[in-house]
Amino acid sequence: MKEVNAAIITIGDELLIGQTIDTNSAWMAKELNAIGVWVKRRVAVGDNAADIRYALDEESKEADIILLTGGLGPTADDITKPLLCDYFGGKMVTNDQVLEHVHYLFEHVFRRTGPMLERNLKQAEVPDNCTVLMNERGTAPGMWFEKEGKVYVSMPGVPHEMKGLMEKEVLPRLLKQFEMPVILHETLLTFGIGESILAEAIKDWEEALPVNMKLAYLPHYGMVRLRLTVTGHDKNLLEKELEGQVRQLKELVKEWLVIDMDLNMQQVVAKFLKERKQTVGTAESCTGGYVAHLLTIDPGASSNFKGSVVAYDNQVKKDILGVSDQSLESVGAVSEEVVKQMARGVLKNLKTDYALATSGIMGPDGGSEKKPIGTVWIAVGNADKIEAKEFHFRFDRSRNIEQTAITALNLLRKFIVENDG
Amino acid sequence: MKEVNAAIITIGDELLIGQTIDTNSAWMAKELNAIGVWVKRRVAVGDNAADIRYALDEESKEADIILLTGGLGPTADDITKPLLCDYFGGKMVTNDQVLEHVHYLFEHVFRRTGPMLERNLKQAEVPDNCTVLMNERGTAPGMWFEKEGKVYVSMPGVPHEMKGLMEKEVLPRLLKQFEMPVILHETLLTFGIGESILAEAIKDWEEALPVNMKLAYLPHYGMVRLRLTVTGHDKNLLEKELEGQVRQLKELVKEWLVIDMDLNMQQVVAKFLKERKQTVGTAESCTGGYVAHLLTIDPGASSNFKGSVVAYDNQVKKDILGVSDQSLESVGAVSEEVVKQMARGVLKNLKTDYALATSGIMGPDGGSEKKPIGTVWIAVGNADKIEAKEFHFRFDRSRNIEQTAITALNLLRKFIVENDG
Repeated sequence: MKEVNAAIITIGDELLIGQTIDTNSAWMAKELNAIGVWVKRRVAVGDNAADIRYALDEESKEADIILLTGGLGPTADDITKPLLCDYFGGKMVTNDQVLEHVHYLFEHVFRRTGPMLERNLKQAEVPDNCTVLMNERGTAPGMWFEKEGKVYVSMPGVPHEMKGLMEKEVLPRLLKQFEMPVILHETLLTFGIGESILAEAIKDWEEALPVNMKLAYLPHYGMVRLRLTVTGHDKNLLEKELEGQVRQLKELVKEWLVIDMDLNMQQVVAKFLKERKQTVGTAESCTGGYVAHLLTIDPGASSNFKGSVVAYDNQVKKDILGVSDQSLESVGAVSEEVVKQMARGVLKNLKTDYALATSGIMGPDGGSEKKPIGTVWIAVGNADKIEAKEFHFRFDRSRNIEQTAITALNLLRKFIVENDG
Repeated sequence: MKEVNAAIITIGDELLIGQTIDTNSAWMAKELNAIGVWVKRRVAVGDNAADIRYALDEESKEADIILLTGGLGPTADDITKPLLCDYFGGKMVTNDQVLEHVHYLFEHVFRRTGPMLERNLKQAEVPDNCTVLMNERGTAPGMWFEKEGKVYVSMPGVPHEMKGLMEKEVLPRLLKQFEMPVILHETLLTFGIGESILAEAIKDWEEALPVNMKLAYLPHYGMVRLRLTVTGHDKNLLEKELEGQVRQLKELVKEWLVIDMDLNMQQVVAKFLKERKQTVGTAESCTGGYVAHLLTIDPGASSNFKGSVVAYDNQVKKDILGVSDQSLESVGAVSEEVVKQMARGVLKNLKTDYALATSGIMGPDGGSEKKPIGTVWIAVGNADKIEAKEFHFRFDRSRNIEQTAITALNLLRKFIVENDG
């Protein structure tokens, strides 16, 4: 069986002037990968006819599937639709189903009054040589073209519209059209070991991997994800092969292993808390609510997360968390004493099983010789005991915030495991 | 003067399996743009020699500057460095300055004990036909190649290492090597109007723009950024042209204009508070600390942000914010009554000038017929009065959280302007 290759082309000047970070491509690549399609290249080009044509010519040389996003909005800087029509040799016609849908959205969803704008009505115009893919979440439809055995799909760049189209239309149609190889992944999450030492520890095992297996190191804020991928045809056989290798790898990295699932740190913590029917609350100074945000981003958070006191100002630390004036004056807010009092304040006032507290200097200002930028105290505890630990990070402000949050969640994870099996 | 074009090539399987979102390219594009370089294309390829070579061949056809990131780490899946050496016809040699730097990092920054790993020492090996760019923040150096009048620069993919190299080495050298055109941008931030209605409102003005000016619409969570770009040679003249056009545009969009600067919503709020020497605190149910996070992500937050009570659980709403049992039982947590009490609780307990409170149903569960998913109440107020407003969002969970946060910050912005000039 031949490998099925895809290319992703994202269109829009906003990607080339750095105004927009492309999150679509990563999501699309993950979904394509899961059905057995390998993304070979991703290209971003501007709202420029010659550049879009060049990208279409170029990417269709190697890829079987060419997915395009962007360039379909209602404003004047969008030129993609007529270009595609011409590229595939069609002419523009009004699609009644899309027109009806645009009217419906304006009346019932956007709740607009007044006449429709011409530029909105134009969204119902499509090339007569494409299969129209209905976009339930917006006015611009998806368009499916076929040429010389290759598939080209154009979708709007708005992430939740693109996702709706991919899930409902594009992925099911691709599965019908192509015979896919099997691609399986297994992921191990590790924490507290650098990429190079980890690589050294598993060197012999990695070098002996069969040719259809590939290991990727994915470092992220003190964590390293190890992603093992196997490609082939016989799903049952591949599953067994993968399972055997994962078992060996787990043994080699057991000292740093967080979990053998593709979860992030906050998902691991949430899983552990749910399994034990326990709750946590946070007291955050330097992380400014970011730990709470991480703990509430996934559905179902209310069963294990009660709340947080973001005590950015010392007065809030005193008034709501009961941190003592004397501690703040003698040892300062970034100290073992204060961070432990903050954790105690959470247990008392939020009535949770566990408390997590952070206080530190994130930069770029506020450092001193005794407490340089990157100095962080984190406390974790329950009714029986509260532990605190000092860290020194050396990144910029936003990365220091994220690193502190992940490190705090990892301390909580370890505390749960150590104190509650 | 000829336009100076750049291409960005990002290397790494993690970009093609969707494990990593590429934030580097956007940052690089912004910086390049600022010095007058136009990014024509961005390409992502895997850790595969043939694909990297193909990308180098292809991108050097049109671009004067080819920037590469990724593929330089210490682990086995990195193949870029020897490939570049070969591509430009050099041989690998150990660079003493890099070697010394790697030793320094291990001893003093990473504080590792034990002997250095061979794979770390290897990071000091570089092609003999490149200019080595010292990477203060990591072990892998940058490499600057020149061939047929074009510049190729390879940098590690770790964002803060790449940024350090760009700022210290790459951008200053590019400015020396190329004669750049002038590219100027002005950005207006609008809120509360859709892209297509906005476009209709400024259609005549936009169509009359001179050929060297271009307008981009950048929609993001209810905001639309209007970015006007002018390209040319005479900076003074261009500034005047741009200023004149921006003045006209501001008049046309004044109803929805938030600010005539390239700031995001939380930065506008922080600016307004700082100018007035006032403070805010938040009470967050559905946003789970995300508003607090936005208000603390930029430096200097402590002057205008005191803290937040993330009251995810109703008990926390009662105990810390003083929300009444009776309100929670009769009208529920997602209601005008409760969200106003939450705001009042902030003013009282956090002693701030302004309070912002959120309560809503973010999904995917928890909706009912009376309060469907996406129902949100937001309250904003000061000692004199508290106002509340209901919203209905129709996105997925994470986008509902972000949309609620931005909408809340916009309500605060309006409240500040209306009640304090």
